Amino acid sequence: MIKAAILGGSGYTGLELIRILANHPLVEVVVITSRQHKGCKIGEVFPGLSSFSKLTFQDPANISAILKADIIFSALPHHASMEIVPDILKKGKRVVDLSADFRLKDAKIYEAWYGKKHIAKALLKKAVYGLPELYRDKIKHAELVANPGCYPTGAILGLAPLLKVGLIDTKSIIIDSKSGVSGAGRTASLDTSFAEISEGFKAYKVGEHRHTPEIEQGLSLIAGKNIKITFTPHLLPVNRGILSTMYATIKSQKSKVKSQKKTVLNAYKKHYQGEFFIRILPDGMLPNISQVKGSNFCDIGFKIDERTGRLIVITAIDNLVKGASGQAVQNMNIMLNLSETTGIIMPPLSV
Amino acid sequence: MIKAAILGGSGYTGLELIRILANHPLVEVVVITSRQHKGCKIGEVFPGLSSFSKLTFQDPANISAILKADIIFSALPHHASMEIVPDILKKGKRVVDLSADFRLKDAKIYEAWYGKKHIAKALLKKAVYGLPELYRDKIKHAELVANPGCYPTGAILGLAPLLKVGLIDTKSIIIDSKSGVSGAGRTASLDTSFAEISEGFKAYKVGEHRHTPEIEQGLSLIAGKNIKITFTPHLLPVNRGILSTMYATIKSQKSKVKSQKKTVLNAYKKHYQGEFFIRILPDGMLPNISQVKGSNFCDIGFKIDERTGRLIVITAIDNLVKGASGQAVQNMNIMLNLSETTGIIMPPLSV
Amino acid sequence: MIKAAILGGSGYTGLELIRILANHPLVEVVVITSRQHKGCKIGEVFPGLSSFSKLTFQDPANISAILKADIIFSALPHHASMEIVPDILKKGKRVVDLSADFRLKDAKIYEAWYGKKHIAKALLKKAVYGLPELYRDKIKHAELVANPGCYPTGAILGLAPLLKVGLIDTKSIIIDSKSGVSGAGRTASLDTSFAEISEGFKAYKVGEHRHTPEIEQGLSLIAGKNIKITFTPHLLPVNRGILSTMYATIKSQKSKVKSQKKTVLNAYKKHYQGEFFIRILPDGMLPNISQVKGSNFCDIGFKIDERTGRLIVITAIDNLVKGASGQAVQNMNIMLNLSETTGIIMPPLSV
Amino acid sequence: MIKAAILGGSGYTGLELIRILANHPLVEVVVITSRQHKGCKIGEVFPGLSSFSKLTFQDPANISAILKADIIFSALPHHASMEIVPDILKKGKRVVDLSADFRLKDAKIYEAWYGKKHIAKALLKKAVYGLPELYRDKIKHAELVANPGCYPTGAILGLAPLLKVGLIDTKSIIIDSKSGVSGAGRTASLDTSFAEISEGFKAYKVGEHRHTPEIEQGLSLIAGKNIKITFTPHLLPVNRGILSTMYATIKSQKSKVKSQKKTVLNAYKKHYQGEFFIRILPDGMLPNISQVKGSNFCDIGFKIDERTGRLIVITAIDNLVKGASGQAVQNMNIMLNLSETTGIIMPPLSV
Repeated sequence: MIKAAILGGSGYTGLELIRILANHPLVEVVVITSRQHKGCKIGEVFPGLSSFSKLTFQDPANISAILKADIIFSALPHHASMEIVPDILKKGKRVVDLSADFRLKDAKIYEAWYGKKHIAKALLKKAVYGLPELYRDKIKHAELVANPGCYPTGAILGLAPLLKVGLIDTKSIIIDSKSGVSGAGRTASLDTSFAEISEGFKAYKVGEHRHTPEIEQGLSLIAGKNIKITFTPHLLPVNRGILSTMYATIKSQKSKVKSQKKTVLNAYKKHYQGEFFIRILPDGMLPNISQVKGSNFCDIGFKIDERTGRLIVITAIDNLVKGASGQAVQNMNIMLNLSETTGIIMPPLSV
Repeated sequence: MIKAAILGGSGYTGLELIRILANHPLVEVVVITSRQHKGCKIGEVFPGLSSFSKLTFQDPANISAILKADIIFSALPHHASMEIVPDILKKGKRVVDLSADFRLKDAKIYEAWYGKKHIAKALLKKAVYGLPELYRDKIKHAELVANPGCYPTGAILGLAPLLKVGLIDTKSIIIDSKSGVSGAGRTASLDTSFAEISEGFKAYKVGEHRHTPEIEQGLSLIAGKNIKITFTPHLLPVNRGILSTMYATIKSQKSKVKSQKKTVLNAYKKHYQGEFFIRILPDGMLPNISQVKGSNFCDIGFKIDERTGRLIVITAIDNLVKGASGQAVQNMNIMLNLSETTGIIMPPLSV
Repeated sequence: MIKAAILGGSGYTGLELIRILANHPLVEVVVITSRQHKGCKIGEVFPGLSSFSKLTFQDPANISAILKADIIFSALPHHASMEIVPDILKKGKRVVDLSADFRLKDAKIYEAWYGKKHIAKALLKKAVYGLPELYRDKIKHAELVANPGCYPTGAILGLAPLLKVGLIDTKSIIIDSKSGVSGAGRTASLDTSFAEISEGFKAYKVGEHRHTPEIEQGLSLIAGKNIKITFTPHLLPVNRGILSTMYATIKSQKSKVKSQKKTVLNAYKKHYQGEFFIRILPDGMLPNISQVKGSNFCDIGFKIDERTGRLIVITAIDNLVKGASGQAVQNMNIMLNLSETTGIIMPPLSV
Repeated sequence: MIKAAILGGSGYTGLELIRILANHPLVEVVVITSRQHKGCKIGEVFPGLSSFSKLTFQDPANISAILKADIIFSALPHHASMEIVPDILKKGKRVVDLSADFRLKDAKIYEAWYGKKHIAKALLKKAVYGLPELYRDKIKHAELVANPGCYPTGAILGLAPLLKVGLIDTKSIIIDSKSGVSGAGRTASLDTSFAEISEGFKAYKVGEHRHTPEIEQGLSLIAGKNIKITFTPHLLPVNRGILSTMYATIKSQKSKVKSQKKTVLNAYKKHYQGEFFIRILPDGMLPNISQVKGSNFCDIGFKIDERTGRLIVITAIDNLVKGASGQAVQNMNIMLNLSETTGIIMPPLSV
């Protein structure tokens, strides 16, 4: 069995890593850390998982314990991750980092959006952006994988094929995303308390969410030019899931817009051929977050609005799985040269 | 007491009319009809309202009973309404029609989107579109008020002031709306059953929802030119509420976009000055459907995305109140020359 | 207008007092306090209520401001209330206290269950338990009304008529209650965060909830003997509402149990004759918290289980209205000699 | 691979069988039937499962297709099952029946509670009640396993150990259960529509739910005497899960009740020693349906109410897994002599 460690394991992405790895046939979690819960058993913090691990949360300062693992998942908050990851890499261990610390290639952009100095800039070039369907080959040999943010995963997977074939006006992209509450983390807050969220719905951080530059970096790389987007996240009264409704103008004479349906479909099919975790929905069907809940799928559907010449692309992922821990395990499988779907072929809990 | 009748009163808009009129000091519901529930007491169909009315649902064919009322609300489905409303008007009664039958001025557009022949075209010119904040004066004297659809109410109220002052590119409008399930009506259906909706979220009828031409008609009238929009409705796992996130490009040099914030705010404040039911949120706050739940308010907030030159306008209404029955009572108050807020100053049930 | 003050107004019971009094024709809130939010406007803390009050939260230490009111609602936490209420009473003001501080007649029981010394014991005899349907006459002249707890309200109202006529074995009472999350207050906590509550359900404080002695005191007083109950509260994934399912053995030969249905119904009808806020449901219907949401009703239904000789009584209230702030206003109406239902005839928001 | 068939596969238990068997390493679903959806692909009815099966729903009349399987799951409604199961058994195939048709040993009781003639009485003696933790040995050799109802599973597993050691007064048992909406099946109905259920909570079929005799039969068999219970089911606004709060009087002098805690705990530990799917929670913890969601666990916790001498036992299961399809697969594993947990070690999706 390959040995894995989870740093900062008492949040929702930690919970999810434990849940997913519990069924992985070739990997075993041997150490898990948590400042807040050090000394507690996993089952005391996550009662539902008591049957799957008898581990005790370790103090994150206990580096030697962490280094017993072959592969390390860091589920630490941003900035906390960059404080420890360089030391782990120096010891020759490979890391999948679920924080935002190594996703943006340009430290200045990181510092502008995250409001903190980047203290491990040297690693930015080394870090591979962990979107397997786009960067599988680089992930294979990476020492450090920067696991994508939840919103960027759904947005980039939905738009990449269109940018690749130059179908849409890159200045016209608007991303209207709606996320379940687990995306806000597992810290007590009035803003995410049940009575404030249930039967409510709102947008937040409009035009200023930190995932904006990550999405723009991802799209720009594919398009081969600088792309700016409008990004509006919303908070859904559900536990899990992100649905992104994305708008872009089709670069085509209006009279020919209708005929683009086939072109779009082909772009998706070709780009994602053989990808188990990407599901291009048949004509007439659109994604629903309930159909990916608990699974590592990204469902993609689209519609052409002939009347206005726009393309509407909709993607659905589980923010904790394909948007975080499931994708992290997918990256790990690739890094360790295992079959990519090992342990993560989980059918969605659609009801 | 003024006497009111409710036709087709056993759906959610009917329920809501009864709830709201229960507290109206000057109006009394004297007759209510329902094909499905004729002979049942209101309390048998809506137990929560048993203390407020002892009325029995009448057969809708019982026209003479209906004509006892001074004012008639039709909460019948579209097409059913146009079969009965002409007869009622002929008898000299005034009607607030909550169906879609008299909203669109152009019968051809109705027929194209609703798939049925319009059989009361003569009334289309006569019917006044019942958005009080825009058409108060015409409503006052109307014999037939076409109560707006739920999506159009939030969309038009949010965009009207901007169109009036010519601030936005009318070709750039995208409306991304999210509605609670009560908007789908009170008919049993697998699509709206709890287990299919809870923890789910999806778009539906993308680019082809019937409220599209109604929104376009409303916006075009204000702008004085033909406007086409992209409209995407979604289904939220909540009972009530519509949040519309609307995107438009600001007609301004990019360097001056930032300075438009004040212009936009002024446009809203001026346009809605003295309007009790329109609340322009202070800078930094954005609407949440929970803050309008059960009330007749339309909350409006906005944000300028300087990076892309777009304006993002967000409106929240309760689809059953400002989006249907509350607005219908507001229209009735105007028609009857009562104080416009009579009986509908309901604070939201925000938790 | 009669002037009212609200102490500790930034929790859910405070929010609800503002919401309800917003529509009271004879009472105006003139001062509201909050340690946490002093200096903020009501609309900044509760955006939905911005149209209803321009008040600013005052420092609770500002006694002179509080004394401008004719009647004072204390929505302070337990123990905080008993620190300030005696001073207010000394100034000749009347108080409706929503905390637990003056509900239990025996200070020792208070101290045993609440784990704190009682520092205003002298007031315990003076305080009137504010359950209008049982103690209306005493409330009328009370200087200090101890507004009942949410669970006790639904439990006592459901069992009182049965105890009065001696129908049930007083040793057999089991109360299984389920409450919405707003009952836990408006403080950030992981336990009440959305992702922990949604799609979950659990019992808590089984056999040790602090409302136990309050229920027992209420039932014992009516029965004229000491009653002990088993009480199990649960946490429902809803915002509002308490449904209590209560079990008791019918004191009757088993062969005659069936015939007790009429006796039970008569006991309820007689006991609650003319009570607007108590609704005895017709045979075959049982309460649902959705049918009382936002209203001051207590719905009561029952079923006889002939096979076991037990009576099952079910009551539903809105924990924030009849279980807290609505009942407080009802008490105020009685104290001020206003019509008891003034301002609180709110139809439920059943959808 | 062993071949399985699913009859009546388009309901929630069918969906769940497909989901669970998708990850079973030794069993493959080769045929699935549905009257309503015959001719449709699984992915058309359950989009989330499109990646896991390319099967098309067959007409249930197509017996020869069904007989290709080695083991048959019948997820047909009650009475429909008894019409087809005898024929299948005659062909030498083994059946796990998820309907109620073969659970009750006494056909008269079936007929009294289900209101229909039993037309396969000869099989009642043959059928083995499929509660593996109690009847594993019989299940091993059964031709026909009657998979338990959802409520009975949680109730019987929680009370069995106490009845075995004679700890509780068998006349005192009250079972107060709360179930998620998926328990009502996948048929469109106003009663289970989102807007009627969300933010609501009610009891239903009080004292007359059809699972009552099944629970009584299960408890009576263990206790060795005839037991009658009071059973009250409630409908929770969640998709999945049943929490049963059960009350019984401890047969012990009151002074000794406290000391029974250890006895109770030992009874559970002994009775369920080595059972992977039964989790006895540590002192101070109580079950929550969220901690078993999507899994085959039954979590059990208890509390002694010393003040009244009662024992409160609480169990939580996922009604679609341990309460239906998960237990059906567990039974299949036992019948086929596979390791009992094969393919059903699913960690709960606790968030």
